[in-house]
Amino acid sequence: MNRRDFFTNGSAGLLAGHMTLFGERSDAKTFSRGKQGAKNIIFMVSDGMSTGTLNMADLLLNRKDGRMSSWMKLYAEQTGRRAFMETSSSNALVTDSAAGSSAWGGGRKVPNGNLNVNADGSFNKPILQKFKEAGKSVGCVTSVTITHATPAGFCINNKSRGDESEIADQYLDLKFDVMMGGGAEFFSAEKRKDKTDLFAAYEKAGYTVARSRDAMLGLNNTQKPIMGVYCEGALPYSLDTFQDERLQKAVPTLAEMTQKTLDLLSKNPKGFAVQIEAGKVDWAAHSNDAGGLLYDQVAFDQAVQVALDFASKDKETLVIITTDHGNANPGLFGSDKQFDLLQKFKHTNNWILGELDKVPTAAQLIERIEFAQGYAIKQSEAEKILARFGNKNESGLYIANKPLFRELAGIQTHYTGIGWAGMDHSADYVELAMFGPGSETLKPFVKNTELHHFMLDMTGVARA
Amino acid sequence: MNRRDFFTNGSAGLLAGHMTLFGERSDAKTFSRGKQGAKNIIFMVSDGMSTGTLNMADLLLNRKDGRMSSWMKLYAEQTGRRAFMETSSSNALVTDSAAGSSAWGGGRKVPNGNLNVNADGSFNKPILQKFKEAGKSVGCVTSVTITHATPAGFCINNKSRGDESEIADQYLDLKFDVMMGGGAEFFSAEKRKDKTDLFAAYEKAGYTVARSRDAMLGLNNTQKPIMGVYCEGALPYSLDTFQDERLQKAVPTLAEMTQKTLDLLSKNPKGFAVQIEAGKVDWAAHSNDAGGLLYDQVAFDQAVQVALDFASKDKETLVIITTDHGNANPGLFGSDKQFDLLQKFKHTNNWILGELDKVPTAAQLIERIEFAQGYAIKQSEAEKILARFGNKNESGLYIANKPLFRELAGIQTHYTGIGWAGMDHSADYVELAMFGPGSETLKPFVKNTELHHFMLDMTGVARA
Repeated sequence: MNRRDFFTNGSAGLLAGHMTLFGERSDAKTFSRGKQGAKNIIFMVSDGMSTGTLNMADLLLNRKDGRMSSWMKLYAEQTGRRAFMETSSSNALVTDSAAGSSAWGGGRKVPNGNLNVNADGSFNKPILQKFKEAGKSVGCVTSVTITHATPAGFCINNKSRGDESEIADQYLDLKFDVMMGGGAEFFSAEKRKDKTDLFAAYEKAGYTVARSRDAMLGLNNTQKPIMGVYCEGALPYSLDTFQDERLQKAVPTLAEMTQKTLDLLSKNPKGFAVQIEAGKVDWAAHSNDAGGLLYDQVAFDQAVQVALDFASKDKETLVIITTDHGNANPGLFGSDKQFDLLQKFKHTNNWILGELDKVPTAAQLIERIEFAQGYAIKQSEAEKILARFGNKNESGLYIANKPLFRELAGIQTHYTGIGWAGMDHSADYVELAMFGPGSETLKPFVKNTELHHFMLDMTGVARA
Repeated sequence: MNRRDFFTNGSAGLLAGHMTLFGERSDAKTFSRGKQGAKNIIFMVSDGMSTGTLNMADLLLNRKDGRMSSWMKLYAEQTGRRAFMETSSSNALVTDSAAGSSAWGGGRKVPNGNLNVNADGSFNKPILQKFKEAGKSVGCVTSVTITHATPAGFCINNKSRGDESEIADQYLDLKFDVMMGGGAEFFSAEKRKDKTDLFAAYEKAGYTVARSRDAMLGLNNTQKPIMGVYCEGALPYSLDTFQDERLQKAVPTLAEMTQKTLDLLSKNPKGFAVQIEAGKVDWAAHSNDAGGLLYDQVAFDQAVQVALDFASKDKETLVIITTDHGNANPGLFGSDKQFDLLQKFKHTNNWILGELDKVPTAAQLIERIEFAQGYAIKQSEAEKILARFGNKNESGLYIANKPLFRELAGIQTHYTGIGWAGMDHSADYVELAMFGPGSETLKPFVKNTELHHFMLDMTGVARA
């Protein structure tokens, strides 16, 4: 792990598969550490965020609340720096989240599906292990399962992202300071295939285990590592929680988790490093779910504000805000009036389709959509959607019936004006923002792997 | 015209329709002019360029030629600055090209379709008229008709972009130094409804009229204004010219036009201002034509390099590189192998469908697509396309049969991995790059209208 693979001005560094095995470059440049240096790192990921997702969330806030998003305000007020980031993995222009997080987490492009494991089976040491060894407090926060690819890419090595039960096992020995998200099924004896009670194992190993929003809010012990797991699966979509007091009480928001995590981690005089992920932005993009997408992006933006508030006061914290890859490349193609419908949305497409007990009638579906999103689709459109309930042979990521969600999204486009270019990740270069000490050295175009070394260099932690 | 409407840190400036009638702000900030100041402006527009278009053109060059695009190199080498630009018009989040160019050209958001005419009928003075009055040489170059909305927005006032014959008339009195593009039908006696021979009128008024690539290459008189019109309609797609020597001889490339224009305009000791537009990037996006889109974006990039070479040597030239709005939000969602098919493309979708004498058989269509783009579609796919030939009731912008092009693009996605989110403009914030004196003052997020004042301020030309 004594390597550098900085992007040089030529194009070779961009070509997946054109890297040498070790990626060594004699002309490698190092980042110059900021004058003050950064003690802390807050790495914020809106997973699967195409540029249009960021744009539309900002436009939604402009029109709904008369304000900019915190992310865009960082640019408008010229307090943050920005760059394009390419996102390829070692074997494809279009990365998955495992290889995406590993590029940041391990400093090296790995094949899709791998967590800090190279094609030859060798390991790249995850960045939070490096920071932990340097004496910093470390952690991960996510709105999906804490064992999901994006947090895992900062924590562990695994040939496959698929077995989240195994990843829940792997976390046990790390004793990371704060881990928070969903995924209780990968810890509970009832749900795990091996019937191991991992929650008990975590407690036995000295962790504080938090299982609810209230338990999270009550956390104040910084001596013991914390494993916070607030629900099975991912946390619910932000939009769906707005109408549901039970959900609001049960699960924390990303901003609440971020605030608590910063409170806990910032007690360490040697500093901290944390990854905060809005994982369901990606899930919403995979299902072309406009309400899910934009309100979870807004929830991410609220967590960004929490981080920026902390860093503004602290002055020793580098905040990095980005995404691992584009997804679905959505955009607003319709009228302002169509777009303003989003302001009245009560529920996601996932709620409309995912929480049905049985196949509805056309009239029921029309009523359900109008209740959830404020527009009445036509009978013929309802019938088109109903015709898709049968075909479960083409399941997508995170959704059981991809054609069903695609059909609803396509019809929704007529009402909201929001269109989608696909239901999967894209090869787009993505938005990368920074705030705080070190951000002044950000180049306008970077490789995803560069961020690994950037974080180490800016905090003065050895690369080895 | 003694007004300022700079973007301030709050969100109000972003909200279309929330501006006061005069847009006055007591807290308006001016740009500080660069130390040296800029004598010349080269304003480059890839019309309708979503972020994915820029990305994919760069990836295509990476993989095909082993090099970066000039645009991305500007970032990688840290010689250029970049920003996000919002693109709304006065009456919609989604602008058209007339309002888009008018925002830059007149410094004020106007309703879609208008060229520097406000909703109340008042005029905003076009920027090239201001520069001309300041003693600079001025001009426009485009790969579509020279009377099209984007060049027109820098030149004239017109309530409607629609009548290009009238716009051809309006240009006559301006005596701008270099105007180049297509659109001969708006100048020739045979094609104009009023049977006026505008070409003769231009010559009579003291212009040099150039009607071919050879005539353009031979231009060397900087004393007389030049009207270069090289074909009827828009210039052909770059990809289609690669296989056609006749086309190559008949029409110049955007880079050739740019080089000649800079040669001519740079003779003026008082400097120059020019707009260079890759207009067919927008047309290709409207028809979801991947080959048309990416190779015209590459052609734009070659023109960018011409401009950067000039500015690097000249040191008094500010180069602005951007787009007026997103279009279709394309992205690569497929495999590297799929994407690499683009390298073997010989012809655009427009060539496949637009140059047919009669409706082909399925076998003929399959053969034609394989010849043009290197993949053999299935019989069932060919039949789906053929079924669309009938419906001409839904024409799109620049294409007679929108469903036909959509069908081909949807099938093409299975082979190339490139997806499309729509066939129209999007509300995306767009990429804005600058190089040269003044670029150091670029803010990370700007309104489209700000560029008007930026250009005036950086060259020291009065705003009034």
